[in-house]
Amino acid sequence: MNLVQLFNFTHKSDERGASLIAIEGLKTIPFAIQRVYYIQINTLHAKPRGYHAHHQLRQIAICLSGNCRFVLDDGLNRVNINLDSSMNNQGLLIDKMIWHEMHDFSADCLLLLLASLPYDSTDYIHDYLQFKQYLGMNQ
Amino acid sequence: MNLVQLFNFTHKSDERGASLIAIEGLKTIPFAIQRVYYIQINTLHAKPRGYHAHHQLRQIAICLSGNCRFVLDDGLNRVNINLDSSMNNQGLLIDKMIWHEMHDFSADCLLLLLASLPYDSTDYIHDYLQFKQYLGMNQ
Repeated sequence: MNLVQLFNFTHKSDERGASLIAIEGLKTIPFAIQRVYYIQINTLHAKPRGYHAHHQLRQIAICLSGNCRFVLDDGLNRVNINLDSSMNNQGLLIDKMIWHEMHDFSADCLLLLLASLPYDSTDYIHDYLQFKQYLGMNQ
Repeated sequence: MNLVQLFNFTHKSDERGASLIAIEGLKTIPFAIQRVYYIQINTLHAKPRGYHAHHQLRQIAICLSGNCRFVLDDGLNRVNINLDSSMNNQGLLIDKMIWHEMHDFSADCLLLLLASLPYDSTDYIHDYLQFKQYLGMNQ
């Protein structure tokens, strides 16, 4: 499996001085959008976030302003991928059962996340060893 | 009918230097999210946009950066409402059969739109007189 899956969105620029990027659930991305959230950084010293995986939730992350570094980990491989606002027409898939972390936020970083399910605290795996154990159980 | 309907979203700030705002379809807002789009302004001279209504589409507009002015018109009343990034935890409902325009964009304006339906060019009413005629037909 390729850990880094980026989805390209159509980017419409027009003579009115704006660009418009549209994403349709189950069409542009592989799931229906049940939840949308955005993370806005407001300091030079934002701490890393994430450090969890989900049993079922699938997400798409889009960087609308600034930049940050994602870590994706499937239990065997760990990759880093930098997202910045020049990639605002690309969405990074954070699939279910992928450990993910976000690091090195710029002070103006704004991330948009599209999520396949409503919020469910029981869907989170917050412990990396437990994540590995779940992966083993699923093999 | 109140032309200006703002939905408040829960705003979670945390000690990690970020704020997170989440929106669930059919829960936080009155429709399922079938499409998400964002409009990013990149000039001091962005022209007004919108100037249409939709037969069926319902939308929520959120200002994530900068500011702009919305015009909403139900055929009887016309109101102006300014959105700015301090209102990033509020969504403005653009209901079906509401003529809407966007004016006075700041150069850094970023709008997030959540839409109830996939894109459908036949759902647009681009002519104000025709919009009024449709309203009359629906009475």
